[in-house]
Amino acid sequence: MELADRVLAGDVRAVARLMRDLDDDIPGSREELARLHARTGHARVVGVTGNPGSGKSTLTNELIRAHRAAGRTVGVVAVDPSSPFSGGAILGDRIRMMEHATDEGVFIRSLATRGALGGLSRSTSDVVAVLDAMGKDVIIVETVGVGQDEVDIIRLADTVVVVCVPGLGDEVQAIKAGIMEIADVFVVNKADREGADRTVRELEMMLHLRDQAVARAQAERMAHGHHAAGMDLAPAAASLDWEPPIIKTVAQRGEGVAALLTQVDRHHAHMEATGGLLARRQARARRGLLALLQHELMRAALHAAGGDAGVTAMVGRVLHRQSDPQSEVAAWLGRLLRP
Amino acid sequence: MELADRVLAGDVRAVARLMRDLDDDIPGSREELARLHARTGHARVVGVTGNPGSGKSTLTNELIRAHRAAGRTVGVVAVDPSSPFSGGAILGDRIRMMEHATDEGVFIRSLATRGALGGLSRSTSDVVAVLDAMGKDVIIVETVGVGQDEVDIIRLADTVVVVCVPGLGDEVQAIKAGIMEIADVFVVNKADREGADRTVRELEMMLHLRDQAVARAQAERMAHGHHAAGMDLAPAAASLDWEPPIIKTVAQRGEGVAALLTQVDRHHAHMEATGGLLARRQARARRGLLALLQHELMRAALHAAGGDAGVTAMVGRVLHRQSDPQSEVAAWLGRLLRP
Repeated sequence: MELADRVLAGDVRAVARLMRDLDDDIPGSREELARLHARTGHARVVGVTGNPGSGKSTLTNELIRAHRAAGRTVGVVAVDPSSPFSGGAILGDRIRMMEHATDEGVFIRSLATRGALGGLSRSTSDVVAVLDAMGKDVIIVETVGVGQDEVDIIRLADTVVVVCVPGLGDEVQAIKAGIMEIADVFVVNKADREGADRTVRELEMMLHLRDQAVARAQAERMAHGHHAAGMDLAPAAASLDWEPPIIKTVAQRGEGVAALLTQVDRHHAHMEATGGLLARRQARARRGLLALLQHELMRAALHAAGGDAGVTAMVGRVLHRQSDPQSEVAAWLGRLLRP
Repeated sequence: MELADRVLAGDVRAVARLMRDLDDDIPGSREELARLHARTGHARVVGVTGNPGSGKSTLTNELIRAHRAAGRTVGVVAVDPSSPFSGGAILGDRIRMMEHATDEGVFIRSLATRGALGGLSRSTSDVVAVLDAMGKDVIIVETVGVGQDEVDIIRLADTVVVVCVPGLGDEVQAIKAGIMEIADVFVVNKADREGADRTVRELEMMLHLRDQAVARAQAERMAHGHHAAGMDLAPAAASLDWEPPIIKTVAQRGEGVAALLTQVDRHHAHMEATGGLLARRQARARRGLLALLQHELMRAALHAAGGDAGVTAMVGRVLHRQSDPQSEVAAWLGRLLRP
């Protein structure tokens, strides 16, 4: 039986194997993934992001529990190196996660390594596709909210949850602008700490400013983005017809998690009703196609150059002014592309 | 006379025209740039980066003045939207810049728009090449220190100057890790403010931690990076044989600027002596080649797909499960690449 069939039959060892093969770019693994595609599109993908120490892993753990209690199967992709899922956290957290280890309705995959060009984002996308094909109802993508990689990753989600904590006035502003722009639901976790209400107010203020920024960005995109639309990998702005709710939680005691789940579900229903879900999934599919194309093109290009040594030789010729970048690239393209 | 020849003859209108043509991807402009390549490699490229409000534009202005006093010609590329060079600042700053407007030894170009895929980084690289071919002795690349784009841009520099200000304890930590990793010289500007010495101490501490992180990163790269070496666009780690100095300045009064210039020159001499300069320029040439290749490949791919409508059709087939991403990309590559 092919790997893809075993994945569809729910064989978790086949799932782990396929994920590893995709990560390692093993020949044939993309074809297996292709065979799964027809069975994808069912899962709701929820991104959970926040700075280290925001407690987003504990929150993810509680979200798993809540989804399971509602009868939903859950997949988790943890791309945060500080996450207990991916192995960087304190013992207490690890133990807390263990409760799901024997639950067949939960599959957890952690990603910590960084490959070449957009590797982590592509790997995450692959894992989401496999979990989706497995039939998971909900897929939680947990990632730390820094860096462009993470913005690309979190944009796989249908719903983006941004986790903050009180008492760090600057933290709200330290959340990457790119993340703020795409947040659908805000959580103020550790809300039993002093300053929780102030953080809520700060977020409300940020959201007000965001609405203005989104309007500006949309106008700018209208003015500039046209000629490159087909290749545009930049994030689309948040939609103005959804006002992101701000939920206070104390994840360690499970407080506020039900309210959070309600808002996540409400957002999904809103997206379905308004067509926003389709638009987001179109954008996701486009980015996925272009990223895959780019990956394959660069692989073919490296081959056409005669491997790394060939590229190094080009660099040498350019650096010693025996040639110039344009001529080298033109010759390279000549070897690579159909006339 | 060709545009390239006019650029080499010092015709500033031709320079401005070529930069604009490159930015707009006008046919023939890359060939003009290619003709300039043999005359590049002379200029020292200095990156100046820092958060908005760090006073890096004022500092850049003072650096221009100091270089001019030392008899060096100067080119400036300002990619910070808040910079007075690119037009976003208060009147006082603008007026201060005006002093260089009539100096033929200074050429200033601002870049504020963001194009498609890595566009800003490529534009900056193009502008640096043109200024270099013009014969500028020093090229200052000024950019705000946030986002991956900016990290890519600042990595064009032979020497990277990171500008901080006192009194913002968290600011030091808010500087993007990627920027911290590649800083060669630190400036604590507005050093007449309270807390300047504390900021210096915090930077010293950060540098100590950085040395450890660099050692770790190098080990990790050794362990993981091999198979993708030819296509690796990730920044190389800072070298451990240079301890970045920390200079206090009050740019508005010109204080500390001479000391800063001394350290920038010292870093350049160190880089030349140790071979670090060659290594950095090799890495820069490699990134430039790959970015140009990627740009041309994606352009050819868009054409082969039948434009944006063709990509949208693919997305539709993938989304409606009539096809899968792998098959679409395989067919796309088939139309594009030599068999």
